[in-house]
Amino acid sequence: MASVFHSVGLIGKYEDPAVGATLRALGDHLRGRGLRVLLDQITAQQSGDLGLETASRDTLGTECDLAVVVGGDGTFLNAARCLSDHDIAVLGVNLGRLGFLVDVSPAEMLPRLDQILDGRYLQEERRLLHATVERAGATLMASDALNDVVVHKWQVARMIEFETWVDGVFVHRHRSDGIIVSTPTGSTAYALSGGGPILHPGLDAVVLVPICPHTLTNRPIVVSARSEIEVQVTDGSHGEGQITCDGQVNERVAVGDRVRIRAKDRTLRLLHPADHDYYRILRSKLRWSEHP
Amino acid sequence: MASVFHSVGLIGKYEDPAVGATLRALGDHLRGRGLRVLLDQITAQQSGDLGLETASRDTLGTECDLAVVVGGDGTFLNAARCLSDHDIAVLGVNLGRLGFLVDVSPAEMLPRLDQILDGRYLQEERRLLHATVERAGATLMASDALNDVVVHKWQVARMIEFETWVDGVFVHRHRSDGIIVSTPTGSTAYALSGGGPILHPGLDAVVLVPICPHTLTNRPIVVSARSEIEVQVTDGSHGEGQITCDGQVNERVAVGDRVRIRAKDRTLRLLHPADHDYYRILRSKLRWSEHP
Amino acid sequence: MASVFHSVGLIGKYEDPAVGATLRALGDHLRGRGLRVLLDQITAQQSGDLGLETASRDTLGTECDLAVVVGGDGTFLNAARCLSDHDIAVLGVNLGRLGFLVDVSPAEMLPRLDQILDGRYLQEERRLLHATVERAGATLMASDALNDVVVHKWQVARMIEFETWVDGVFVHRHRSDGIIVSTPTGSTAYALSGGGPILHPGLDAVVLVPICPHTLTNRPIVVSARSEIEVQVTDGSHGEGQITCDGQVNERVAVGDRVRIRAKDRTLRLLHPADHDYYRILRSKLRWSEHP
Amino acid sequence: MASVFHSVGLIGKYEDPAVGATLRALGDHLRGRGLRVLLDQITAQQSGDLGLETASRDTLGTECDLAVVVGGDGTFLNAARCLSDHDIAVLGVNLGRLGFLVDVSPAEMLPRLDQILDGRYLQEERRLLHATVERAGATLMASDALNDVVVHKWQVARMIEFETWVDGVFVHRHRSDGIIVSTPTGSTAYALSGGGPILHPGLDAVVLVPICPHTLTNRPIVVSARSEIEVQVTDGSHGEGQITCDGQVNERVAVGDRVRIRAKDRTLRLLHPADHDYYRILRSKLRWSEHP
Repeated sequence: MASVFHSVGLIGKYEDPAVGATLRALGDHLRGRGLRVLLDQITAQQSGDLGLETASRDTLGTECDLAVVVGGDGTFLNAARCLSDHDIAVLGVNLGRLGFLVDVSPAEMLPRLDQILDGRYLQEERRLLHATVERAGATLMASDALNDVVVHKWQVARMIEFETWVDGVFVHRHRSDGIIVSTPTGSTAYALSGGGPILHPGLDAVVLVPICPHTLTNRPIVVSARSEIEVQVTDGSHGEGQITCDGQVNERVAVGDRVRIRAKDRTLRLLHPADHDYYRILRSKLRWSEHP
Repeated sequence: MASVFHSVGLIGKYEDPAVGATLRALGDHLRGRGLRVLLDQITAQQSGDLGLETASRDTLGTECDLAVVVGGDGTFLNAARCLSDHDIAVLGVNLGRLGFLVDVSPAEMLPRLDQILDGRYLQEERRLLHATVERAGATLMASDALNDVVVHKWQVARMIEFETWVDGVFVHRHRSDGIIVSTPTGSTAYALSGGGPILHPGLDAVVLVPICPHTLTNRPIVVSARSEIEVQVTDGSHGEGQITCDGQVNERVAVGDRVRIRAKDRTLRLLHPADHDYYRILRSKLRWSEHP
Repeated sequence: MASVFHSVGLIGKYEDPAVGATLRALGDHLRGRGLRVLLDQITAQQSGDLGLETASRDTLGTECDLAVVVGGDGTFLNAARCLSDHDIAVLGVNLGRLGFLVDVSPAEMLPRLDQILDGRYLQEERRLLHATVERAGATLMASDALNDVVVHKWQVARMIEFETWVDGVFVHRHRSDGIIVSTPTGSTAYALSGGGPILHPGLDAVVLVPICPHTLTNRPIVVSARSEIEVQVTDGSHGEGQITCDGQVNERVAVGDRVRIRAKDRTLRLLHPADHDYYRILRSKLRWSEHP
Repeated sequence: MASVFHSVGLIGKYEDPAVGATLRALGDHLRGRGLRVLLDQITAQQSGDLGLETASRDTLGTECDLAVVVGGDGTFLNAARCLSDHDIAVLGVNLGRLGFLVDVSPAEMLPRLDQILDGRYLQEERRLLHATVERAGATLMASDALNDVVVHKWQVARMIEFETWVDGVFVHRHRSDGIIVSTPTGSTAYALSGGGPILHPGLDAVVLVPICPHTLTNRPIVVSARSEIEVQVTDGSHGEGQITCDGQVNERVAVGDRVRIRAKDRTLRLLHPADHDYYRILRSKLRWSEHP
């Protein structure tokens, strides 16, 4: 059966030699099916020679129609922020524990991959956020986020004061450790630890979760993903703030800076095996009891 | 200026004589503008003769294009479940404290009403839920809800066991005091006390909030309002359950009964003054600090 | 080695035939060591003839110096309320899952019991609560509780209004589903589901946990176990309340009734194997990660 | 009437010129009653010449039997850590909003002070914590805390991994933003924002509150104040941690460092007006509804 994908990019966990064997098995299998395989250049530096053509992540995004990411959710988040600007589907293989984004285990990855190449898969459109920090009209920083954008205290013993605006309307001024703006994808990550709700991935929404709010009635608020969210650090006496995207990209935020968070128009095309069950993964990760 | 509404129904708080004066002022003012005014029959029984034509709530829904509900959120919820089947806009006047649904105060109601009659208002479409209880193929009970549908323990000292399904997919089996299925409208009511997030009214979503869950990792889940939610009481050893809609309509639920909850196709057309600000009401109700 | 206990009472889970074999093994073993064994009369009705002398629970409390309770935490709670008035140590054997109170498994119970009879054990003093309901000066109901006393809504769709007093000082008036007054023993049970903290068993304190409080700033309060707590249902428009002790003893509470909760002077002497580790059980029950 | 206190120290809010007038009024009044008055040296640098004898904070602690602290809870915490080593009672006057520690308003401070000098007051013993950071046997840092000791991430985007031990027994290893160890005094401050319970000031206990724990079942644990608590940062891949006492004293914590937290033997003697009502302040601060 001819594959519905023709050129496959491989991306492995950063600085983890154990990923080599899995990548080799994937590369051999994909080439055995007659597909072109490109190995991410950064991954190649540590995985040893796998006999695969290497390419930058952007080239990989341009030339491939499928990327297989091998690692944990962290590896996937990093890859997703790059790949979301390209027309490419992404599949996650988990090296360690099952993740929401990396839900294929190495033990079953080859038959699973064959099914996907045969066109039997479930595809989700996952929304990314785009955050900018503006100071005096200039953009200091811009980053995408698949999970969350967090504006939080930095090197500060206690609270920081924020103002939050949604679509230009003032929401609240509050003292807290910070605020998490999370997609449905990120709602099972840091936002959940902060007391946020789980947002079903099919929902076009984001949730604003205050972290340890001083005002005890500050609660998570869920708004449309089409909202523009703005956060300003308003009190400098307690030090600066910081913005963090997906826990991986950081930048300092000063009093008066405007942090703007919008949904990207482009979504990430996330592939799952055809029998993917979101709630089963949820039960497994959160150790909810099963249906007997 | 000719009114954009032509026939106005008046509904007052149940068994509260104080509502009479407010209704009289509204009736006089509306008739002064040449509009037809219908007084809800049940309201008329306690308000004394206001010199107004009376009608059943259904007649009022059919013959009027605007209803003014005077009371608290409870009065509004009760009226909304009736009126949502008709093509009528609804405005809430709060007798006591400001409410999310009754956001016009008696002191300012006449000028506010004039603006609304002149076409200057903000209109929201609020989603209602429709809940049914099915036993052996028969429908035991059916009710709408503007705020929430709660399946909970009844006369039981401790927990009850439920299974929850979303769109036919099993979510979880859990022991708790119950589960709240809430609209955005209801998210600032009982669901908030149970630890649920605030859902912006513009969001077409519902939230499932477990009440005192035995499994501590059971968290509120937000899903699309187009989902069908099913709840079953699975353990009879701890007694029966109960379903409650908007805290007002109750029915017993036995083991094996299927509680199904769907969004209604029809929404309630809720009117606000043109300068309505959802977040300002939120700040006022939850006592969040203001923008200085 | 002579046993430090001389007369052992056996109490089994209510209406569970499976308990018979475990009780028989315990009885044979204890008599093999030359000890007197008394079987609880109610247990005897369902366990079949185990060749053991039977006695009422009170007689058992008077004549034995050790009671072995076989079942779950529910069985133990029931037995503890009776036995706490007597000078008797209590050991719990769990039929099903490991519990905080029943922490000896049937598989290891005989060697564990031998160690205990030899004097190698850990003894804890667990505080019980004593609750009364008073109406017009008369005491309507009185009950002990090892876990918790809950005053909650009964057959009510929504909230109920309470006033809470500690040592005669007014604490708060609040609307909620109810309030839990819990001992350290009960802090890992219903109170935990309601958002309460874990109280170490060595702490002479009780915690007041509001259930789904309408006022979002109502939080659990920990006070000395020597405090007298009083709860009154103050609003009758929403129906009556109910008091529940350990989830097992119930009584209706009307508006104006005074529910008083005090610590009992007598404590329950709870035995554990010598290597008992409270935090290990906590980690196991709450699935916290282990020290690698 | 002769005063029960003979020498009074005055301490004012740091870098707040507005404190001068209040201090002058206090100084004049106290000297008018024939008492010796010492002004804290650091306070004196900004308050201008008040015609008062100045002294270092330690001298003030040694030579006075009463200290009056004028400012907010922050000022009080700072003063309390110094004064707790001396045999001195402390009274708090709040410059701005009512605080739990500074519960006398400037408007009523002179008559309140007279009552206290006349011996009509309520005295509480407030427990302080003593925290040390040990590395390779050496003590890197030592500080007292009246509110709380927090071990938390520092300049880290995401979580940090800790191990917690109580009295030498392993409690848990967990990933989170940090852990708060709070006294009853601190339980209404940062610990409350983190989801901790309120601990009545009369309780000799501390509460461990995880901040945004990754494991959702990690809950606040209340243990005896006589416990020794140890926290170790165990994972260095995510950066270092930091220890913060009362939000005012900070020190870096590396992987392998041992943070030990014990109660001090000495308590702080906190004075209140004779009609002090802890629960009234709680209601006021948390905006709980009043008894009508």
